[in-house]
Order: sequence, then structure tokens, then C-alpha cells
Amino acid sequence: MKCTRCRSRAEVYLRQHNSGFCRRCFVVYFHRQVTRAIEHERMFTTEEDVLVAVSGGKDSLALWDTLHELGYRTTGLHLSLGIGAYSDHSTEKTKRFAETRDLPLITVPLAEEENGLAVPAVAAFTHRPACSACGVLKRHYFDRLALDRGFPVLATGHNLDDEAARLLGNVLRWQTDHLARQHPVLPPTHERFVRKVKPLFRVTEYETAVYAFFRGIDYVIEECPNSVGASQLLYKEVLNRLETTSPGTKLTFLQEFLNKGRPAFAEGEPVPPQPCESCGMPAYGHVCSYCKLVREVETKRERTRRHA
Amino acid sequence: MKCTRCRSRAEVYLRQHNSGFCRRCFVVYFHRQVTRAIEHERMFTTEEDVLVAVSGGKDSLALWDTLHELGYRTTGLHLSLGIGAYSDHSTEKTKRFAETRDLPLITVPLAEEENGLAVPAVAAFTHRPACSACGVLKRHYFDRLALDRGFPVLATGHNLDDEAARLLGNVLRWQTDHLARQHPVLPPTHERFVRKVKPLFRVTEYETAVYAFFRGIDYVIEECPNSVGASQLLYKEVLNRLETTSPGTKLTFLQEFLNKGRPAFAEGEPVPPQPCESCGMPAYGHVCSYCKLVREVETKRERTRRHA
Repeated sequence: MKCTRCRSRAEVYLRQHNSGFCRRCFVVYFHRQVTRAIEHERMFTTEEDVLVAVSGGKDSLALWDTLHELGYRTTGLHLSLGIGAYSDHSTEKTKRFAETRDLPLITVPLAEEENGLAVPAVAAFTHRPACSACGVLKRHYFDRLALDRGFPVLATGHNLDDEAARLLGNVLRWQTDHLARQHPVLPPTHERFVRKVKPLFRVTEYETAVYAFFRGIDYVIEECPNSVGASQLLYKEVLNRLETTSPGTKLTFLQEFLNKGRPAFAEGEPVPPQPCESCGMPAYGHVCSYCKLVREVETKRERTRRHA
Repeated sequence: MKCTRCRSRAEVYLRQHNSGFCRRCFVVYFHRQVTRAIEHERMFTTEEDVLVAVSGGKDSLALWDTLHELGYRTTGLHLSLGIGAYSDHSTEKTKRFAETRDLPLITVPLAEEENGLAVPAVAAFTHRPACSACGVLKRHYFDRLALDRGFPVLATGHNLDDEAARLLGNVLRWQTDHLARQHPVLPPTHERFVRKVKPLFRVTEYETAVYAFFRGIDYVIEECPNSVGASQLLYKEVLNRLETTSPGTKLTFLQEFLNKGRPAFAEGEPVPPQPCESCGMPAYGHVCSYCKLVREVETKRERTRRHA
């Protein structure tokens, strides 16, 4: 098979686009998909400082690499979650990526923060599933650091597979409030929130893996030992099954949702958040999810100490 | 395992309801699900004459049997599609079912109708997929016969698997017009149309098979040789995969769509159909789909004759 762009030997074939690419042209294709997402959805401009959430995995590093290559002004934000060797490796890969490209990186080791909230400790103290605790912590630190450091926009590495799986989960239960909020660009609903964007929403997990490989990006290959929710993995598997028979299913599913499905659910103004009584960040109750979590942990720690 | 109702030995276990049933209680359960569908969705009353579309397969015969057992006034309508031995067997089983229960049955052999439109002939003359031609023919004859014979309502044997698969197909492409029209009860959009209902929409394909077996219903086991569209089968497979991991997925998917999803798409009055210029039945163009098909067949036949 020949490269669709330059007619040299193709190294990768994308069935959903009926196109083959050599290494060089695949990178061009990938950058174009991301550019299209950024420009078409008005995610940010080259004049804005973009905070990129980087875990050290292929998606977030492929994102950071792409944004840097395309000339955007980026700073990495890495949370060291405290999940044993997995987190150590992730932090190491992220730091090395930033150093070799001379890119600014903010690293936050959660265990060393004021409340010492590494993911395993929080999960153990609250008996919440680790992924749920991790989500609350990430959202809080992303929001707070973006605000504190004056970034107008936060970019995450969610790819097409992530977004299509999330959409399928929302649709299987017809969670209309979640459907109304699912979009690759979420404008801030409060002055203390920043815009959140997903520039990789048009490229598949396979494509980000190929990109990382072709670009020689050294990323953490091991999955988080807490693993993603089983249902998310099942939804991805099912969508891949549909994609195999009908290439383009995932992109159509997400794109047509954005064009025709979501508008039906997103009518009316969303309820604006109110300042959290405890930390002042925007919250949908008296206290934000993060502060609720902190309180839970503190109560349990106190009890454990008294019983010791 | 014991029967959830009577504590005797269970012969069937339904994971989505976490219930087991003996033969007798399963039949009671099945009748209750259908009654709930009919009453909750106001499909029809015991005072109305219900025309039941029967193919001779397990779903439509299970439906007819159930409605008869529940005391509804039913007449069967069977179209003999002319698809070789498959159609002969189907017609045979349907006739025997009606005879043994002394139920009125209208049989229409398509090949003997005015235009001689058996499915294989139509498919061959028009180069349409057989299933598409068959769908047009069925819809037309169902509508026309219900109208001509004065039935206010037509019931079909679509089960939960059929409806969930159809919903998934509509959702994967976000076909909002199809989503707006998907409902177990479709009120007539024109005075020459009748109400169309699907009383089995709450029971799975597996459950109708078990019902038919427990009730000793003799149905055509062979599938139509033209087979259902491959995509419909794939959607069923994928939904079964999700159901296995998370029992109840199919019912929640469909039920929550009806509760929360569909209302978002079904706003505004649907465009009313106009009388077909050719046959007078309601149509969404100058000529209805059936008459278009008839014209196509006639043109091709004429051409074939001239070349002969």
C-alpha cells in the first residue's frame, strides 16, 4: 500500500479514512486532525497560554508534543498521584519529556500537599473506589492550579475512544444532564473555572499510539494498576467491534452527537456553581467534592488515631 | 434454584430481574410484562379489535397467543411473501396456529395480488435489497388491510432486542427524525393510518423463545433466507455483550430513552402525510413508497418483455 499523500510506502492504514500514510505524512495528518479540532471548536489561539494536563501516558504526551510542534504556548501540569511505582515512572517520563524539549512543567506530588492526599490513602480512608477519588483530586488540582497560575484554558489528552465510550455510557442510561455537558470544549461556568478542551477528540487511541511511536515519545506503557472502570473498557471493546465492521462508526457517533444529538439536551442555561464554603472554588453544593473528600479523610484519620 | 413466585423448581432464570420461574409462573410473568406494556402505554382495550401481524415466527405467534389468552379480540394478518419454502412453512405454521385456537386469520399471498409482487420478484426487478423491498410491501399491506377491514390498531411482534438494536442504530448516527418516531405506540398521523403498537417491547428475544417453548407453540424456526440486515444482528450481539456484564442494560436503554431521551427529539408536530396520487394511501411524497416500488417493477417488467 502507498501513502495517500506522497505515494511512498505506507506504514499505517486508517480504515475509517480509507487512507494509508508513511511516517512523515502520518504526523502531518495527525497534526491536521488536531488543528481542525482546535480551530473548528475554537479551543484556544496561539496567543493564549495553554495548561496541558500530562499523566506521562501516550495520549497526554502526544497532545503536548503536537501542541508544541504546532506552535502553541504550553505548560505541562503533572499530578504525582502516589500510586506506587506506576506514579514514579509516570512522573519520571513526564519530567524527561519536558526537559528534552525545554518545556515548562508544573509537578504536584499529591502526598506532599497540605492534606497529604495521595490516591491510595484517600481510597483506603474513604472506602471510595480509587478511580472516583482520583477523579475528584484531579479535577480540583487542575481547576485550582489553572486559576492560581492565570491560565485561561486547560487541555486534556482524551481521545476519540475515550469520548465515544463516555458517550455510549451516557446514552445507555440516557443521562441527559451528562449528555448536555459532554463536549470537547467546556466554557467556564464560573469566573474561577477555566475553559476545558480536548484537542485529541477526533483521533483514536490507536492513532495516538502510532503518533507516539513515530515521534519516538517515551511514555509509561503500563496501565494504572487501579485500572480504568471495567465498564469504560467494555464500552471501548464494543465500539471497536462496531468499528471493525463499519469503519468510521466512532467518529460518526461522536460527531453527529455534537451536531444533532447534544443540542436537544443542552437547552437552557446550566445551573451556575456557588463558591465552596470551605475552599472558595466553585461548587454545586455548599461544599465542593474535593473538600468533602478531604473532610471524609480527616474524620477517618482522626478516628484511626484515637483507636490506635 | 427455586421459582420466585411459587418456590417450586425454577426452569428459567432471568438475570435482568434476578428472578427464576417454573413453567407456569413464567407464563404468568410474561403475560404481566405484556399487560403492563399494553396498559401503561395505552395500546388498546379489550373493546377494540386488534389486527396482529403474524409471520409464523416465535415472536408474532407468542404475541398472538398472549393477547388471546389475556382476553383481547384479535385477528391475525399473515402476508405470504413468496420466499420459497421458507414462506410456505411460515404460512403453514400460522394457519395451523389459528385453526387449533379457532382464531380468525387473514392470509394475503403477495404473488397472487393484483401486481404479483412476491418479495424475490420485486427484489430482482428493482435491484433493491430484498429486506428493503419486503419492508415497503409489509408496511403497505398492513396499513391498507387494517384500514379496509376497519381495525383501529395493528400489533407487531417486535421484542426488546429488536427495539434496543434499532435504537442503537439510530443513536450511532444520531438520526434525530428516526429517534423522534421510535416508540412502542405510534398514533396514526393520518385518518387513513391506524395506530401501531408493539406489546412485546419489554420482553427479550430469549423470553419469547422460552414462552413459545413452554406454551408448546409450533413456529418456523428457520430464519428468513434473506436474513435480517447484518447491522441489526451486530447491534443485537453488541447489546447482548453489554447485557451479560450488566443485566438489565437493554431494558434500561430503551425505557430511559422513552422517559428521557425521546422527549428531547419529539418536540413539534410531525409533518402530516398527503394522499398518494396513485393509491390514495397517506404518503410523504407525491407517490407512496409502495406505488413507487410497483412502478419500478412494472417499468422493468415492460423492458424485459420488449427485449424478450
